[in-house]
Amino acid sequence: MLSAADNELLTRTGPGTPMGDLIRRFWIPALLASEVAEPGGAPVRVSLLGEKLVAFRSPDGSVGLLEARCPHRHASLFWGRNEEGGIRCVYHGWKFASDGQCLEMPAEPEDSSYRERVRAVAYPTHEAAGIIWAYLGPAELKPEFPDFEFARLPEGHFHASKRLQRCNYFQNVEGELDSAHVQFLHRTFGGYEAHGRVSLKSMDETENPVYTIEESGAGLMCVAERPYPQGGAYWRVTPFLMPTFTMVPSMVEAHNTFTAAIPIDDVSSWGFTITWRPERPFDEADWERDLGGLTLHVKVDPETFIPERNRENNFLIDREAQHTTNFTGIMGTRNQDLPVQEDQDGAICDRTTEHLGTTDRAIVAARRLMLRSAKSLQKGTEPPQAQNSAAYNMRSFSGPGTADQGWRELWETAQPKSTQPVS
Amino acid sequence: MLSAADNELLTRTGPGTPMGDLIRRFWIPALLASEVAEPGGAPVRVSLLGEKLVAFRSPDGSVGLLEARCPHRHASLFWGRNEEGGIRCVYHGWKFASDGQCLEMPAEPEDSSYRERVRAVAYPTHEAAGIIWAYLGPAELKPEFPDFEFARLPEGHFHASKRLQRCNYFQNVEGELDSAHVQFLHRTFGGYEAHGRVSLKSMDETENPVYTIEESGAGLMCVAERPYPQGGAYWRVTPFLMPTFTMVPSMVEAHNTFTAAIPIDDVSSWGFTITWRPERPFDEADWERDLGGLTLHVKVDPETFIPERNRENNFLIDREAQHTTNFTGIMGTRNQDLPVQEDQDGAICDRTTEHLGTTDRAIVAARRLMLRSAKSLQKGTEPPQAQNSAAYNMRSFSGPGTADQGWRELWETAQPKSTQPVS
Amino acid sequence: MLSAADNELLTRTGPGTPMGDLIRRFWIPALLASEVAEPGGAPVRVSLLGEKLVAFRSPDGSVGLLEARCPHRHASLFWGRNEEGGIRCVYHGWKFASDGQCLEMPAEPEDSSYRERVRAVAYPTHEAAGIIWAYLGPAELKPEFPDFEFARLPEGHFHASKRLQRCNYFQNVEGELDSAHVQFLHRTFGGYEAHGRVSLKSMDETENPVYTIEESGAGLMCVAERPYPQGGAYWRVTPFLMPTFTMVPSMVEAHNTFTAAIPIDDVSSWGFTITWRPERPFDEADWERDLGGLTLHVKVDPETFIPERNRENNFLIDREAQHTTNFTGIMGTRNQDLPVQEDQDGAICDRTTEHLGTTDRAIVAARRLMLRSAKSLQKGTEPPQAQNSAAYNMRSFSGPGTADQGWRELWETAQPKSTQPVS
Repeated sequence: MLSAADNELLTRTGPGTPMGDLIRRFWIPALLASEVAEPGGAPVRVSLLGEKLVAFRSPDGSVGLLEARCPHRHASLFWGRNEEGGIRCVYHGWKFASDGQCLEMPAEPEDSSYRERVRAVAYPTHEAAGIIWAYLGPAELKPEFPDFEFARLPEGHFHASKRLQRCNYFQNVEGELDSAHVQFLHRTFGGYEAHGRVSLKSMDETENPVYTIEESGAGLMCVAERPYPQGGAYWRVTPFLMPTFTMVPSMVEAHNTFTAAIPIDDVSSWGFTITWRPERPFDEADWERDLGGLTLHVKVDPETFIPERNRENNFLIDREAQHTTNFTGIMGTRNQDLPVQEDQDGAICDRTTEHLGTTDRAIVAARRLMLRSAKSLQKGTEPPQAQNSAAYNMRSFSGPGTADQGWRELWETAQPKSTQPVS
Repeated sequence: MLSAADNELLTRTGPGTPMGDLIRRFWIPALLASEVAEPGGAPVRVSLLGEKLVAFRSPDGSVGLLEARCPHRHASLFWGRNEEGGIRCVYHGWKFASDGQCLEMPAEPEDSSYRERVRAVAYPTHEAAGIIWAYLGPAELKPEFPDFEFARLPEGHFHASKRLQRCNYFQNVEGELDSAHVQFLHRTFGGYEAHGRVSLKSMDETENPVYTIEESGAGLMCVAERPYPQGGAYWRVTPFLMPTFTMVPSMVEAHNTFTAAIPIDDVSSWGFTITWRPERPFDEADWERDLGGLTLHVKVDPETFIPERNRENNFLIDREAQHTTNFTGIMGTRNQDLPVQEDQDGAICDRTTEHLGTTDRAIVAARRLMLRSAKSLQKGTEPPQAQNSAAYNMRSFSGPGTADQGWRELWETAQPKSTQPVS
Repeated sequence: MLSAADNELLTRTGPGTPMGDLIRRFWIPALLASEVAEPGGAPVRVSLLGEKLVAFRSPDGSVGLLEARCPHRHASLFWGRNEEGGIRCVYHGWKFASDGQCLEMPAEPEDSSYRERVRAVAYPTHEAAGIIWAYLGPAELKPEFPDFEFARLPEGHFHASKRLQRCNYFQNVEGELDSAHVQFLHRTFGGYEAHGRVSLKSMDETENPVYTIEESGAGLMCVAERPYPQGGAYWRVTPFLMPTFTMVPSMVEAHNTFTAAIPIDDVSSWGFTITWRPERPFDEADWERDLGGLTLHVKVDPETFIPERNRENNFLIDREAQHTTNFTGIMGTRNQDLPVQEDQDGAICDRTTEHLGTTDRAIVAARRLMLRSAKSLQKGTEPPQAQNSAAYNMRSFSGPGTADQGWRELWETAQPKSTQPVS
């Protein structure tokens, strides 16, 4: 339960808000690289943290991310001409480099120096793992790009997707960190083959987890321990990485999963998912599974990124199947997350009236970390996680351990072997 | 004409508003029984008085009506599992009885007593005449169910329908009480057969009514008297029953009509209509008429309850027919009411700028009763009508009387003969 | 750049706003005459300056324009009966003349004088050049209709159209006055035949204009001078006529163009365009061009007046054509204006953050004139332009002049020869 003030603080991320300032200290996913695949191709509209932007891939292959409104009279640069060296507004031909510098003002006198004094708002981008990442914070504080394992992998070893999620970003974050819901929301009444979904058969579905939460260099380690039928314990280690990322344990062997909840505005967000495997490229079965829409990747409309199962069609809930097949009557893991996250008393959950339980410890810890960090930043203390690139070089873990093994020992055996790019 | 403050008072019915408090003292129609026909079937979303609820028929046949948000972290119970004994939230499996008591918290430790201290907001329901009625007020003040005649009838003697009306509920109330508009809005230029609508041929269409308004145990008796061509007077007695009900005189013999205007929120409402006949079951002609969509029942979309004639299609107005067939160019009595009620200067009528006439006396009286009752309730005086179940056992009346007959004498002859259920 | 206060002042035009008051001092286009073509035909909804109105052509051919809400209980007169002498509300039969006087209250007692004291809000109309014009200001200040040349022409010599523009009206005004954008936004990479658009081949596209702005009796003369390849100068004279009109130089010989940007509300507007030619009626080629949708007239949906190219379909931009055919990848002059005007940082441009250039002088002058006039009016000084009918009898001009010719000399040769109606 949060105070009304803290709930506002947690959920508002527009320009000038404390939480918006905090998130802007980090590199965040902005769009899929495939949206701006073609050098010199069409610009695309991108909304992030309440800001309207335009992304474009210049003929030289680099990606620009500028405020949509032209500094002149605010015509949208979405209509702009993607030219060598920059984007040109179609209204009066002003041209801007990817760093925002105005390069040309053809309607001004030739000897004018006006263009030297005009800059578009521009944000640095970084392309990794099929995603264009962006840094929306103060230029002088721009951190090194986080040392994600997936960012060092060649094509074929990862798959990135995004979906529109019609709720505040933090409801998505909470869902990712919520290990306890797995055995309810995602429960099937039979095996994988029958129900088209990853089975939880390796985990005792009837036991509740005991939580341990520890801080890490990047955020939190959320550890859920369950008694294991064969003896010892079954562990799920879900790292929460500042500002809004998680690494979610996968039921599929050696298939790692990263998720990011990125505010579009305060009532909608982009949900990014990356799956990756350093050991070997995805094979046909991997692609079939990841593109099948029943994992944490979902099938979406290619234009709007609205999931095929969405609130307009009640996520295609099958009430008969809810009694015979799985707990929700909805097929697919992420497809099951969406209905509960998108309507927690509307698009922004009112956390002043909730009743938290013992299984909400990871969520409570993540809220506290975010609130504390946002408040500290307002007082001048920068979030140390933003500058700790190495701390992002990790994976989640899930699996059984013997009675004398702690989670850290098990987790460490599953971590990336090297920080060197895989070739 | 109302002050701006009184218009606000009259039209705002959300939680905590004075008019919302008043309406919550009464049993009101919440949804059609047919929407939750199947025991153990799918829950349905219900919005009433600005509250988002979920209704479901338990496997034992009883109907639950709970706040949609789960008390835990507010996931919607609409996605819930309708199980023996209660509804279970799909997010973490919390289960609630129809009275709101939390029955299970499977993710909490087995010895936890937390569930005993958590209740969902729940409202009592009562099924009668094809409608699930609800009481949204303080539990300790829950009144006896009103002794409506239709509530004592077996299947086959009544027909209930609902429609979405895109305006504040009180514009619907005013339309029901407004006897004077009948001879204009509902006028046809010929008989019933030609124009597919109940004819007003038994009433002199060219004469204006003289109004008498008296208080009753349930609200008001709105009496309209017109000179009758054959001598004496033609009477229409329209009871207004607190909080938002009317009994509308019907042109069809022995076919009684009840209507209720129920706020969804302040700019939309449910219009419920019940027709009933104790004397004998509906026959084929009755059903044909009532389901034909040209009476106070209208044809609606079965999912959304939006009338087939609606503002998006300008209620299918036929401007040619407006000159040749009837006053509006729109077929059907309720279909004619909708356009004028749904745009009285927008969804909420600005009553500070209206110009009332002598034919608006019933409306003025109903406003006064509602405002006075809401204000009294705020000072601690409960509305006596809510506790006067017997006073709701009545019908409307319309018909001619001789010169020496008063309306009450005529009306009393038409009242229910007994309060015993018809078997 | 404007202060936030001045931007509010400039863009808000609802009842009681200073700019709304100013615009209401002038005759403005309200709807196309073709929308109310038939005497006694269906009333149509008209929204102007935040007011909801209903227009109708009485059986006698005159056009009424009344506030949509009936003075009684505010049912919309859109549903009304268009009868001899006035419009009758279908709710209770109140009837109003075009001047707003209540003519009948059939539900009131016969001897009642109530109707003499009730008036609907009504605005005078004037039909000219295929448009119903209206005056929404104080009756006692109603000016003579402006002496537009097109208003004196017979059928066949003019063409009027309107389109819905989803932005504040002043973004449209600014676009009309903005001579500099012509050589960018409207540039083609070849001739007229190839690209289906009026070519700018008679103007040196690579040279920027030098501006001269002078006041006129109706508003401003905005003069753009460019060096002419053949010697001397190429002139474009664009009159700005109070309150929101322009006369735009045409590339087509003797084809004059008038445009008006009329607020619907603060985030949408009607764009009216009139083309006219006194010398001879439009011939087949004229109609083909004007109805082809590639000039300042666009093709629109006949019901909603939404342009066929609109924001939902990204104005059918062709990104390939943007590199090969013309500057925008969008066909048609007005079609090119719409995307930049409709998203200048949203529906209302934030003029506090723009960066104006030397080519924005006409825009700056028009803003100043409008702001100054609105402020003066609040202090009691009426705008003199409203009463200067003769000053509106003008055309724009574009064409080359020799080195010793000034713009005024050239412009005057192109002005209407007479104020007499052409027969």
